[in-house]
Amino acid sequence: MSRTFKLTLQYDGTDYVGWQRQANGVSIQGLLEDAVRPVEGVQVNVFGAGRTDAGVHALGQVASLSLSVAIDAASLGRALNAVLPPDVRVVAADEVAPDFHARFSAIGKVYEYRIVNGQTVSPFVRRFVWHVIPPLDLDAMRDASAAVVGRHDFAAFQGVRTAVRSTERTIRRLQWREGEGNDVPLVMEIDGNGFLRHMVRIIAGTIVEIGLKRWPAVQIHDILASRDRTRAGTTAPAAGLFLAQVLY
Amino acid sequence: MSRTFKLTLQYDGTDYVGWQRQANGVSIQGLLEDAVRPVEGVQVNVFGAGRTDAGVHALGQVASLSLSVAIDAASLGRALNAVLPPDVRVVAADEVAPDFHARFSAIGKVYEYRIVNGQTVSPFVRRFVWHVIPPLDLDAMRDASAAVVGRHDFAAFQGVRTAVRSTERTIRRLQWREGEGNDVPLVMEIDGNGFLRHMVRIIAGTIVEIGLKRWPAVQIHDILASRDRTRAGTTAPAAGLFLAQVLY
Repeated sequence: MSRTFKLTLQYDGTDYVGWQRQANGVSIQGLLEDAVRPVEGVQVNVFGAGRTDAGVHALGQVASLSLSVAIDAASLGRALNAVLPPDVRVVAADEVAPDFHARFSAIGKVYEYRIVNGQTVSPFVRRFVWHVIPPLDLDAMRDASAAVVGRHDFAAFQGVRTAVRSTERTIRRLQWREGEGNDVPLVMEIDGNGFLRHMVRIIAGTIVEIGLKRWPAVQIHDILASRDRTRAGTTAPAAGLFLAQVLY
Repeated sequence: MSRTFKLTLQYDGTDYVGWQRQANGVSIQGLLEDAVRPVEGVQVNVFGAGRTDAGVHALGQVASLSLSVAIDAASLGRALNAVLPPDVRVVAADEVAPDFHARFSAIGKVYEYRIVNGQTVSPFVRRFVWHVIPPLDLDAMRDASAAVVGRHDFAAFQGVRTAVRSTERTIRRLQWREGEGNDVPLVMEIDGNGFLRHMVRIIAGTIVEIGLKRWPAVQIHDILASRDRTRAGTTAPAAGLFLAQVLY
């Protein structure tokens, strides 16, 4: 009789190679699997809802795992936090139905992309933002953002060397919250049913080009239609990206 | 003909030995003096308003210096930020009257002490807070805080091995802002005409003992009257302390 658990995680991704276990470097998945192993006595697979890249953070990553050992969810959460490094935290642990899977049960995700726009960035947020010095035109950025919402082929917004069946995705919402000073970031909040590799960072990088007045806001329609990665903007730095919430 | 400058600084003190230049370890003063040296061509003294201890942060430390070289304040600020590490930032640079001195011209300072109270602390604020797990009684803490406001002999709240002419100081205001979740800290804001060594951290540590119900709120009167450091609470960790503002 095994139990299935849902873990909600926060992490500062700065020092990690990303979610996925790799031969070289420390991954979040690897840290969790290593932390769970002494609880179960054998190696356990821990599945993440989103495979965050190197340097990407999480406010609400979700992971699932099944254990045979008799342990309740709260004790599991405490046991993991006792051995995980302080930049990776289990903020909630719940027992769920046996068929729950962090990735396959998810119906959507919310990401945040955070930018400090101005001459300096506060030392207290610098690890968690993209620092853009020239002034951004937020109105133009909001105009461009509206064009991204809905069902589109996002091939132009996909990192290179990736193979997926379809590059169509639905963005339900894309909003910008204004920043203030050098420590309250400008935040892009994007809610979709799924995301291609680097998609949020390429959308953020493209909208920032528009905010910098290098391109008019309407150009985002041409970029989408082109399905050509070279037409879109830069891939915004990993440091500004947060997996904020996984929807089930 | 020399010019005098006032620099407003933010820093993440985690990796530094404190404000004051020392033989061993990297200090904020040392970083600034090393950054100014190539501008002036010779060694320049940089004076800080508050000698923050190792690990203590600043939201608004103020430093002053005089230069013979012809440079305007904005250029000086940019030149320093270009060579300072990203965890130390000049957020404002102004030319001031020749008799301005960051420390001797100050008429008061505001410090913040930040606490996350609960089971977990967010990875994004953990370097900048004291993590207190058992629940704190904020009403009791506010009651105790009221007793600290005003002119008192703070000998009981002074770090050991310090020699000052007088241990009397005036606290003008001591307020607590409520926290929320594991990432919005509970903040003690304290405004005074001057502070003894470790005074803010010992006040915070003592009020937390009261918040944990180890002592009744009224005990703070006895502690003040005792003038005895051993009667007060623990010195709260450096990580939670911020020099927020210097008043002139």
